[in-house]
Amino acid sequence: MMNTLREVPNDAVIASHQLMLRSGMIKKLGNGLYSYMPIGLRSLRKVENIIREELNAAGLLEMKPTVIQPGELWKESGRWDKMGDEMLKPRNRGGQDMVVSPTAEEAFTALVRDTLTSYKQYPVILYQINTKYRDEIRPRYGVMRGREFIMMDAYSFDANQESLNQSYDKCAAAYRKIFKRMGLSTISVKADTGAMGGSGSEEFMVESEVGDDTLILCPKCGYAANVEKAACATETPLDSNGKPQVKTDLPIEQVATPNVFSIEDMEKFFNAKSTTFLKALIYKVYNCAIDLSGTEAYKNAKTVTEGGVKYIPETFFCVVIRGDLDVNEVKLAALLKASGAELAEADDVLRLSGAPHGFVGPVGIKIPVIADLSTQEMHDCIAGSGKEGYHIKHVEPKRDYTPFMYADVRTVKPGDKCCECGAELYTKKGNELGHIFKLGDKYTKSMNVTYLDENGKAVTPLMGCYGIGVDRTLASIIEEHHDDNGIVWTMSCAPFQVAIVPVKYDGQMKEVADKLYDELSARGIEVLLDDRNERPGVKFKDMDLIGIPLRLVVGEKNLPNIELKIRSESDNQLVPEGEIVQKVEEIIKSEMEKLRA
Amino acid sequence: MMNTLREVPNDAVIASHQLMLRSGMIKKLGNGLYSYMPIGLRSLRKVENIIREELNAAGLLEMKPTVIQPGELWKESGRWDKMGDEMLKPRNRGGQDMVVSPTAEEAFTALVRDTLTSYKQYPVILYQINTKYRDEIRPRYGVMRGREFIMMDAYSFDANQESLNQSYDKCAAAYRKIFKRMGLSTISVKADTGAMGGSGSEEFMVESEVGDDTLILCPKCGYAANVEKAACATETPLDSNGKPQVKTDLPIEQVATPNVFSIEDMEKFFNAKSTTFLKALIYKVYNCAIDLSGTEAYKNAKTVTEGGVKYIPETFFCVVIRGDLDVNEVKLAALLKASGAELAEADDVLRLSGAPHGFVGPVGIKIPVIADLSTQEMHDCIAGSGKEGYHIKHVEPKRDYTPFMYADVRTVKPGDKCCECGAELYTKKGNELGHIFKLGDKYTKSMNVTYLDENGKAVTPLMGCYGIGVDRTLASIIEEHHDDNGIVWTMSCAPFQVAIVPVKYDGQMKEVADKLYDELSARGIEVLLDDRNERPGVKFKDMDLIGIPLRLVVGEKNLPNIELKIRSESDNQLVPEGEIVQKVEEIIKSEMEKLRA
Repeated sequence: MMNTLREVPNDAVIASHQLMLRSGMIKKLGNGLYSYMPIGLRSLRKVENIIREELNAAGLLEMKPTVIQPGELWKESGRWDKMGDEMLKPRNRGGQDMVVSPTAEEAFTALVRDTLTSYKQYPVILYQINTKYRDEIRPRYGVMRGREFIMMDAYSFDANQESLNQSYDKCAAAYRKIFKRMGLSTISVKADTGAMGGSGSEEFMVESEVGDDTLILCPKCGYAANVEKAACATETPLDSNGKPQVKTDLPIEQVATPNVFSIEDMEKFFNAKSTTFLKALIYKVYNCAIDLSGTEAYKNAKTVTEGGVKYIPETFFCVVIRGDLDVNEVKLAALLKASGAELAEADDVLRLSGAPHGFVGPVGIKIPVIADLSTQEMHDCIAGSGKEGYHIKHVEPKRDYTPFMYADVRTVKPGDKCCECGAELYTKKGNELGHIFKLGDKYTKSMNVTYLDENGKAVTPLMGCYGIGVDRTLASIIEEHHDDNGIVWTMSCAPFQVAIVPVKYDGQMKEVADKLYDELSARGIEVLLDDRNERPGVKFKDMDLIGIPLRLVVGEKNLPNIELKIRSESDNQLVPEGEIVQKVEEIIKSEMEKLRA
Repeated sequence: MMNTLREVPNDAVIASHQLMLRSGMIKKLGNGLYSYMPIGLRSLRKVENIIREELNAAGLLEMKPTVIQPGELWKESGRWDKMGDEMLKPRNRGGQDMVVSPTAEEAFTALVRDTLTSYKQYPVILYQINTKYRDEIRPRYGVMRGREFIMMDAYSFDANQESLNQSYDKCAAAYRKIFKRMGLSTISVKADTGAMGGSGSEEFMVESEVGDDTLILCPKCGYAANVEKAACATETPLDSNGKPQVKTDLPIEQVATPNVFSIEDMEKFFNAKSTTFLKALIYKVYNCAIDLSGTEAYKNAKTVTEGGVKYIPETFFCVVIRGDLDVNEVKLAALLKASGAELAEADDVLRLSGAPHGFVGPVGIKIPVIADLSTQEMHDCIAGSGKEGYHIKHVEPKRDYTPFMYADVRTVKPGDKCCECGAELYTKKGNELGHIFKLGDKYTKSMNVTYLDENGKAVTPLMGCYGIGVDRTLASIIEEHHDDNGIVWTMSCAPFQVAIVPVKYDGQMKEVADKLYDELSARGIEVLLDDRNERPGVKFKDMDLIGIPLRLVVGEKNLPNIELKIRSESDNQLVPEGEIVQKVEEIIKSEMEKLRA
């Protein structure tokens, strides 16, 4: 069943996808659906087992809910609709809605609801390593973003916040060991929790040219964050001559700017740098749950209270930021405890600010102003006037308008300064392998889970959830460990640790190869014996492509020496037949120890 | 996460279902859907691993297709419609038909089609141990008949029949080792292949009071068969006085039998035993593929040719059998290479035989007569006349009608004689754990799989398929190994091999228990330390219920001796602390060896 391919399949653009297909690890069964072939499955199982061993060592308990789950559970949690078309929702013969599980908060929560009834049973962290399905719109990059995949998902259940923090830390520590053992260089980033809800989270990313995420990184102190959450140091705002901006006593002055629409137009028109402009934008914000009761505009706002949380389904804010910067909508939404934020449509902008975008200004506006930290020390600024075709000069932020709040809503860019150490930040594309976060009572509350505390009082426990994409992790090892000839497996995840390649599988060479195979296997070493009737060059190429860490070539002219080649090194060495088993054992042990260190 | 139950859950009627729920191995998530809890999953994985080890040792290769598969593949093989509502068929967001895999002939065949192109690559046996789903109408008995389950399914691909026979024998041998290692007493039976197609098959059954299958067994020679395929010795037919029937020269005589409808009516009316009657029944047979070209009635029959096979979609036969016996419809259908056979409806019976059932007779009938072997030596019989209200006497089978064929179509009953040794057969209810069979070219032909032989000619390979229901196997171990106090695990499948129960987890007892735990664990022994703050009686009861093979009780009054209790025995023994680890190791080793022997 070894079917290596010489050519790169057409639709495979990243190294791991190409190499997994070429080395015969996987085969496509359908769009976003890959079968693992024997050699691929061996590595997949190794990745699974490293995860399993480290989680068990950390005291987590493995279990296995079903993959097909009652739709009812998902209706209870409210995710039946929220997950939308990403879930496969078959109906069974009785007409009941079922779900092909894309994740399992509901199943685990339901299970705990019936099982963990007393404070004595807490804390518990449960996990599964099981098949999941998400109906990705555009599955791509092989198993890196397939529709069916294997996921490790863990769920902690704790009696209180302190205990949750401990469970979370335990998982975080296990994750670091897991990725280390696989030879993966992960970048740990603080991430926005997005649609999953909850707070307190960390993503384990790997660098990837086709990554879904943009990371902001500090070369000096190691600060790392997803751009959706990254912060940076606030610079002293400079004027057009590069000097700190200076307070003005001049009153606001209106200037007709008939053909000035963009920041570039303004720079030309005013002959000034954009760092002196106040950019004002109207945002429409969904399900904003911060307290707005003190603001003028919200006296008659419609509010909804759900699960004890009061929010306004639709509301508007004016965001003011330094002219050369951009607003990050995810940060804005998080700040406002909202489910989303987007630029308001033209008629709303006009109605609320008196002018279209381009001429919107913070002065005199009736909706709350969110002022980015970048504007805090700005002086003598140029801004929109709130009247089409006019801008205003000499705007003094604190004098001329009062922000509802100052906050960090800017999109951090390469070259911005690290908020921790001041070094220049840079950016990378990344892929998420693992994610841990504190869910709090999101599911235990909506699904009515309680336990009895020491005084017999019913208390809602807190949850954390923890995931690792197994297939994606496997592919990422290949992304990090390959060369022009193929995969260069780390010892811990290689499908086989040793390949024995007899130049010809015949006579004395066959005898020695068979003997070596038996001796190494007897010591628990995983050996692939290439007994095919192929030219040595073909066999060498295939073993390089598959990426087995150690290759033993049994050739007539070298006997009684065996040629040992380490995949990651360029030179061979000849080792006497009598010493080879011990030599191989030593290399494997040392490699495994390095990964565990 | 140990949640044992004292009471038997309402809907659990069989021992394994009750004990799995009570011991906390499983929990119900939905109808026919069970989550495996940590302790249950440990045993499930052991069962999986025994299967895996024996299959790998037999040279099979494990792989993993996806659980969600393209519906297209199933349309290609023709099973999209055939499997009907048993398959869950979700549509993905692109509107494509998908299948939650109930089995995987299609996926494996498709894979081989692209991969095994040369005779040099044959033979290959591939398998997976993976999640399956069948939308059972009435899921019951816990995981014994659930909707989602784990199945090992293997598929052999061979260049010719001899090679297929070898692959089949290899799997059969592995199956015997697998069930032996689990401590299961399986009954190997020749089974009808049913809807799966193909021929040459063996079922591995276990006795079960709620089994789906009826087995016919010989106490003397070990003959075993599913009633759907069982044969028995043909007895010399006796007359009403218990003497062998004697040929008659009397001509057929018609007798008016106005109120005689049943066999019992006939016995009274004629004052004769039913062994002297010829029972004739009209059967409607679907997709009959045997050659009927020589028969009168089929000159104008409509035939269909599909995949090189010519068959008649609907046809009728008259089946004649000794009056005290019953026709087995599954055997009849198999004999006629048909997809099914059922008693014809009243109007068809009348049209084809001239009389309703009860008066149908073999003499003069125009459709082919299938004569059961039981009628071969019958003489001077009583039969239906083919005219309502009349029977005929003095019927001489070979003189008065000529069967299209003599064949075995009777339902074997307890008391019938073994066809191998003549002993009296008995019957048992059984459950199928495993099934192996030769599929031939059923799928490779319909899905256009070929390989190039040594002469470069395209040849269709032959397939075999092999399945083991993993959950059902696990439950069956419990069915065979339990007592009034709970499960009595075999050493190979126990969730833990040893339970350490300190009378109180405190002071010296805690110290000794912890030390024992560490020492045993360090030797690779699987230990559960019951550190709960419960009364010793509660802990003992729980350990008995869970069924851990060895229990070590650490009690203050016995120290420095440890109380060793073997779950399957009634007595305890005291073992000095210094000897206990070795003693435990010896027992485990000896138990494991017994199961492997």
